[in-house]
Amino acid sequence: MIQRLAIVGVGLLGGSIAKAARARGLARQIVGIGRDETRLAVAVRDGALDRATLDLVDGLRGADLVVLAMPVLVIERLLPAVAAAVGEGTLVTDVGSTKGAIVRSAQALAAARPFHFVGSHPMAGSERAGYGVARADLFEKATVIVTPTEVTSPPAVKDVTNFWEGMGARVSQLDPATHDRVVAAISHLPHLVVFALVAGAHRFEPSAFAFAAQGFRDTTRVGASDPVVWQEIFHDNREALLASVDRFREALQEIERLVQGGDDAALQAWIAQVKRLRETVA
Amino acid sequence: MIQRLAIVGVGLLGGSIAKAARARGLARQIVGIGRDETRLAVAVRDGALDRATLDLVDGLRGADLVVLAMPVLVIERLLPAVAAAVGEGTLVTDVGSTKGAIVRSAQALAAARPFHFVGSHPMAGSERAGYGVARADLFEKATVIVTPTEVTSPPAVKDVTNFWEGMGARVSQLDPATHDRVVAAISHLPHLVVFALVAGAHRFEPSAFAFAAQGFRDTTRVGASDPVVWQEIFHDNREALLASVDRFREALQEIERLVQGGDDAALQAWIAQVKRLRETVA
Repeated sequence: MIQRLAIVGVGLLGGSIAKAARARGLARQIVGIGRDETRLAVAVRDGALDRATLDLVDGLRGADLVVLAMPVLVIERLLPAVAAAVGEGTLVTDVGSTKGAIVRSAQALAAARPFHFVGSHPMAGSERAGYGVARADLFEKATVIVTPTEVTSPPAVKDVTNFWEGMGARVSQLDPATHDRVVAAISHLPHLVVFALVAGAHRFEPSAFAFAAQGFRDTTRVGASDPVVWQEIFHDNREALLASVDRFREALQEIERLVQGGDDAALQAWIAQVKRLRETVA
Repeated sequence: MIQRLAIVGVGLLGGSIAKAARARGLARQIVGIGRDETRLAVAVRDGALDRATLDLVDGLRGADLVVLAMPVLVIERLLPAVAAAVGEGTLVTDVGSTKGAIVRSAQALAAARPFHFVGSHPMAGSERAGYGVARADLFEKATVIVTPTEVTSPPAVKDVTNFWEGMGARVSQLDPATHDRVVAAISHLPHLVVFALVAGAHRFEPSAFAFAAQGFRDTTRVGASDPVVWQEIFHDNREALLASVDRFREALQEIERLVQGGDDAALQAWIAQVKRLRETVA
């Protein structure tokens, strides 16, 4: 049982953590820290938070677990203030979609003072944002990747793992660099490609969107994602993302040449190979 | 009321037409023509078809409406035999995903003998195939594009429109060339891009697919589509498809350069523009 859970950023993810922790009785007290009094008041009123504050130091005081639930670049910017504010016994984790830079920053801070940080990435979310779409069941059966390194203390990893499992998630471990390649492949590259697909399809035939059916809606659903969130993710995971774009462009050239060349059997075989790969996705 | 409806090809689309026509009482008799006796027998047994045959001429005899529900290249290959077998009063339509080549073939045949053809493209379907996934409600609220030309008789267009509307669909009209550009933009390009995305993401990080979440599943759902069907569609709509790939590649280069260049505001604005475009999709 967590005595005091502090959540910095009470949007879709932070709000869902508050609701899930409340619904499952994981924490005695839940404190929310945010930038907008009116929005925080909603979460207090509906019982997800016991208390809300705009003051980071005030909100973190006495917390045994802190979850940083802001966009990745905000997490990196606030980490020094968080490390300065928390007590020695406080465990800090986050929900950032990229892990390399955040974990490096946390380790640099930990070299100067006691600071117990374990990176987390809950693979749950939505193209919609804000506390209004937060749900107590967001993490049920979701995958959460935690990213300890050789200097992370095993009990801290265990506590963070228990926390996510307590909300119904399945927890996997990856080192931060592998994590960033994995999410480039299954999330950041797909977002970038879908952004380009929506733009390119519209330029090619502006009248076409009126005829869009379920296939187009599903394929391009993530195209409605938040521009600030995704600019920051792309910025933060630029290296892995651009390397994955290179692999994508190679594949695009291959299938394009097969279409141009008119070798029907080779094109069928290429698509069949993709179909088999896609069928390995649970 | 159709006296005799003949459906050539009793898979997902042809089977769904049979079931919908049956459920809504649109046809007195429904005849299915296919290549596999066992599979056709299932549709007779469950009441979707009154009769099934492997013989095209036999199956088309006396039909007042014929629906060609095969892959596009099969439709083109069989059109001359269909035109030779049907009576003067028979109306023929199809479900092919590309319309330019099919409509051109039908018009060439109509120049030599009476042959009443109106191209149709029901924008409904699935990445799954076969009669086993056919549904009586597949066309409810779906969009069907019919593609008359200046030589198509208006009563024929009206009959085909009534037929699709009778199954609950919304019918739009486009000329065949515009239709082919529209479906390149919202269907064929997205399929090609998703095929390349699945291949490229897997090459970049083969371990990543084990962590795929809902976003990746939705984005790549069409990546599990039938290789033969899609090779044929790509072949048939090659010109529009390759032109749309050019527009896509331009957009890809733009966003890639913005990620490389690190101009956060410009990247945000580019993604925001895409988000607004995506939000115009119903």
